[in-house]
Amino acid sequence: MTTGTHVSATDVFDWIDVRAESRRRAGLARQLRPRAASGDVLDLASNDYLGLARDKRVTGAAAAAALKWGAGSTGSRLVSGSTELHAELEFELASFCGAQAALVFSSGYLANLAAVTALTGPGTAIVADQLIHASLIDGTRLSKAEVAVVAHCDPAAVDTALATRKQQRALVVTDSVFSVDGDLAPLAAYAEACANYGAALVVDEAHALGVVGDGGRGAVNEAGLAGAPNVVTTVTLSKSLGSQGGAVLGPRRVIRHLVDTARSFIFDTGLAPGSAAAALTALRLIADEPELPVRARHNAADLAHRLRAAGLPASEPAAAVVSVKAPSPEAAVAWADDCRDAGVLVGCFRPPSTPDQVARLRLAARADLTAAELDRAVEVIIGTAPAR
Amino acid sequence: MTTGTHVSATDVFDWIDVRAESRRRAGLARQLRPRAASGDVLDLASNDYLGLARDKRVTGAAAAAALKWGAGSTGSRLVSGSTELHAELEFELASFCGAQAALVFSSGYLANLAAVTALTGPGTAIVADQLIHASLIDGTRLSKAEVAVVAHCDPAAVDTALATRKQQRALVVTDSVFSVDGDLAPLAAYAEACANYGAALVVDEAHALGVVGDGGRGAVNEAGLAGAPNVVTTVTLSKSLGSQGGAVLGPRRVIRHLVDTARSFIFDTGLAPGSAAAALTALRLIADEPELPVRARHNAADLAHRLRAAGLPASEPAAAVVSVKAPSPEAAVAWADDCRDAGVLVGCFRPPSTPDQVARLRLAARADLTAAELDRAVEVIIGTAPAR
Repeated sequence: MTTGTHVSATDVFDWIDVRAESRRRAGLARQLRPRAASGDVLDLASNDYLGLARDKRVTGAAAAAALKWGAGSTGSRLVSGSTELHAELEFELASFCGAQAALVFSSGYLANLAAVTALTGPGTAIVADQLIHASLIDGTRLSKAEVAVVAHCDPAAVDTALATRKQQRALVVTDSVFSVDGDLAPLAAYAEACANYGAALVVDEAHALGVVGDGGRGAVNEAGLAGAPNVVTTVTLSKSLGSQGGAVLGPRRVIRHLVDTARSFIFDTGLAPGSAAAALTALRLIADEPELPVRARHNAADLAHRLRAAGLPASEPAAAVVSVKAPSPEAAVAWADDCRDAGVLVGCFRPPSTPDQVARLRLAARADLTAAELDRAVEVIIGTAPAR
Repeated sequence: MTTGTHVSATDVFDWIDVRAESRRRAGLARQLRPRAASGDVLDLASNDYLGLARDKRVTGAAAAAALKWGAGSTGSRLVSGSTELHAELEFELASFCGAQAALVFSSGYLANLAAVTALTGPGTAIVADQLIHASLIDGTRLSKAEVAVVAHCDPAAVDTALATRKQQRALVVTDSVFSVDGDLAPLAAYAEACANYGAALVVDEAHALGVVGDGGRGAVNEAGLAGAPNVVTTVTLSKSLGSQGGAVLGPRRVIRHLVDTARSFIFDTGLAPGSAAAALTALRLIADEPELPVRARHNAADLAHRLRAAGLPASEPAAAVVSVKAPSPEAAVAWADDCRDAGVLVGCFRPPSTPDQVARLRLAARADLTAAELDRAVEVIIGTAPAR
């Protein structure tokens, strides 16, 4: 029996085709392009900021751990999915960044969901920078808390939102380095606002760990906020650490609270042992080679400087990321395609993944780019730039 | 300056200690117990249903892939994080289960968030079994759709909810095998309700893939629903496949829609190559060895039978999971501790992670348990059972 008011089961997804067609017309359709294991393409698209994803010491550690510990962790971290590797990684991550404790997740996305949801509730106000990462936004949505979205990197707006809140508790949520443009949040000013108005500060250091601050210890550490009783940071293991996963760092009681209450921790399978071992080895390499973060920042500054010298609107990099705006989404796609055809892989961000509805290229200046590679990248990006 | 109405920044997390104390008093505090790489403990706690997480062919594939492709995928699947390994895994997963297409995520949690959020919206009604997995629940919360929670495994309730809905579109959301008790949803009846009332069916096959159905192809395949135009399934790569990650399987247009719109796909780093390779190798092993799923189901049935024969309230297993209720959360913890002390690792589920606020042991009867290991497990579980 089919009722007159409903579509037939065969057609329940017809609306998807309509949406796909309008995205196609707007130049916003996306495409997966599986890559080969090796090639002579020059990578400025990935988040492998220190070039450690392919470092033989890191891949060797991943391989050895898979053989020794198994291909998967086999269960929730609370059941069978916690190995000594996870505990070691958590201890060293916390030590490196100057936090009391850390908790490792299978993804940075899930770490952000956990931090925001477990630290809020109906009696908590959230004050969020308008450009925080999608996973933090999803965390605020899941938290059921009232959310005040404030202007990007605007401490006065945070101050006002905290001062005028009705809730007793409050959480200020921000990225430290923003993913698309690589700019830095005013963490010291936020911390002052939090101190003045009794609030906690949650900072996503995904694009800062391994790049920003003394030895790559992150922007929270650089701002003197590591170990503060009201500061919680989140990191990914999949960018500078070249692996997969994420972590939450903060006061010991916060980490214990996540173990007891964070749904995206409790109801998820633990990180694979190989990924935990790779992240641990990468972390030790960064601790041993503090020039790696310096090199990434230097390469980004150099890249931005040379693109601007050629008249291109490159961002001012605070970390390893440089963005260059394009006249339109179509122009950005064509620019990225031309770069790829010339052997240089660049990121291409279009609405709704950009902060201002302006499409742009996103370039990651890896620490391990050679001078010749940087020259080649600059030449190709300038040579294929759209007319303005 | 500190205002009188707010706590000091040092005390913003004081409420956490209060909550921790009340959980401790209720016997609900949780503890991480990192395990060693090997030991003589008998594992009935993990979700490694076919014993493939430690299979040398699977761990060898993970190791080789890490060395060849890198320790991490280096970026979003839409930028640099899609390798040929991911594409191969997606193709073979879809083929194995009889779906048109598949999309791999870094976690099953994120796959579930994607399936539910991307397929709904304000104009969609969600009809959800009351015991669906936490990640599906979070998906319904993020979707902003109106959600009708219906009684567990009750097709008549689904029928009524679909018939009386106000929205044009509807999504029925269920697990096929439920995680705690291992019982099976009435998928054929749900599919009939969906056909009658023009609805889509989303089925989480996390605990069914590799265990249930012909050759372990899952409960959706077994019910003749694989490839149906209105059916979408989700799976994990971290249980029978012994690795990490998750996937959504369904009509090609649904998968393309996820690539274009699912936030937990677009804004997450791709699955690590080692984990993709391990899952792919495990999938091929299951296809080659159809007796593996049969053995897991047989071991579960045998385990449940023997526990019931001893007077214990064991569940009727539809897959590899058997649960046994305990008189109280404290009794469940003591029982699991006694089992561990006797060398048998069992799962221990307490509220709020149980469907009925009743604590229980959760036992996974792996396909590779020997007869002697099963005997030992039965003896220990019965010998340590609490008085009733």
